[in-house]
Amino acid sequence: MAMEILWMSGSPFAWGVFLALELKGVDYSPNLLSASAGDLKTPEFQALAPRGRVPVLRDGDVVLWESVAILAYLDAKYPEPPLFGRDPEQTGHIWRVIFECVCYLVPFSEEIVDGVFEDHINMSEAQYREAAAKVHAEFQNFEARLAEHDWLVGAAISAADLVLYPFTEIFLRAAAREPAASHDLGFLPLDKHYPAIAAWQERIKAIDGYDKTYPPHWRAAA
Amino acid sequence: MAMEILWMSGSPFAWGVFLALELKGVDYSPNLLSASAGDLKTPEFQALAPRGRVPVLRDGDVVLWESVAILAYLDAKYPEPPLFGRDPEQTGHIWRVIFECVCYLVPFSEEIVDGVFEDHINMSEAQYREAAAKVHAEFQNFEARLAEHDWLVGAAISAADLVLYPFTEIFLRAAAREPAASHDLGFLPLDKHYPAIAAWQERIKAIDGYDKTYPPHWRAAA
Repeated sequence: MAMEILWMSGSPFAWGVFLALELKGVDYSPNLLSASAGDLKTPEFQALAPRGRVPVLRDGDVVLWESVAILAYLDAKYPEPPLFGRDPEQTGHIWRVIFECVCYLVPFSEEIVDGVFEDHINMSEAQYREAAAKVHAEFQNFEARLAEHDWLVGAAISAADLVLYPFTEIFLRAAAREPAASHDLGFLPLDKHYPAIAAWQERIKAIDGYDKTYPPHWRAAA
Repeated sequence: MAMEILWMSGSPFAWGVFLALELKGVDYSPNLLSASAGDLKTPEFQALAPRGRVPVLRDGDVVLWESVAILAYLDAKYPEPPLFGRDPEQTGHIWRVIFECVCYLVPFSEEIVDGVFEDHINMSEAQYREAAAKVHAEFQNFEARLAEHDWLVGAAISAADLVLYPFTEIFLRAAAREPAASHDLGFLPLDKHYPAIAAWQERIKAIDGYDKTYPPHWRAAA
């Protein structure tokens, strides 16, 4: 039986897992949940995943959450192509970039995403600018790397690219919406402000199977 | 030449790296820096590690930061004993616990640690209690696991144990100090509130070479 991925549309955490599965050519069965329909609060889901978060992988008896842990599991089970490098130096730098993304980018990009998409949050323009400055600092690091190389670490796509990419997409989606759009935070158009990141996004989009991983409710809204 | 680890005394991030090096029996050269002496602001350190944080590993031409990335590097270079599992399921769960520790425990345990040790921070009792509740939730998960098993994942010590352990030590050190001590946050004595975590800490302390990894300024203060 194909492994099951429980997820929600637009979850950047789930998106990276799907991209990994497509890259490795592994068969999988996506199980789309809806928070508004209460799917995360059912006794079944709570028993399966006590933290009540997605994505969750179910592969036979293995039940696993935390999206990067799922990537590590998939890479150990299906080693080709390797997502965590071909030598210790690559492995180290891939994990470095993942932790930099999770620790220094995501908290601030999520602040802006939540400010835009969560109706109950009211952020001031100054708060948007403060968070945007942190995101710019990280984008500048990525831009510098990608201006010289196709991928974030080494010569091939890795878990570092798969972890970062969905956060850039959801962040830019937020940056294009009010009230972020009117504050002109300096990210859009991306190919003007961060041309190397924009070109890298196109390389990700060229992955076989990418279309299957695209958040369905984003497509519906387009 | 032995690899060099640039670090600061009491850094929980550096401590896990040292424990990994002791477990693997790898020769290393610790280079103790002092923030108060300005060691993190020197042009040399900034050039080496632009984020200005420790630990930093220097191993020939490889320069790496983010402590968990350093663990992954060490494990790839010196595979025995493995710190990230012997099969995909163990690998996945080890990374799950690491991300749970980093994402759900550390932000709240650090809040209490900073409240106690950073003179410029004034936290109310309610703020201490709110952060402590989050730490309790994670400690309860760890306690439940360790009541049944010696280690957090699988039958052997892993990176999950090495990442968590230093944060428990620094957190409990803060919980024993004012103003946290007077708030009686429900952690101490640990062997009363969390006997399985206390017993697990003793197993960590029995690692050959543990004494070399103990923060020197903690020993001096004892």
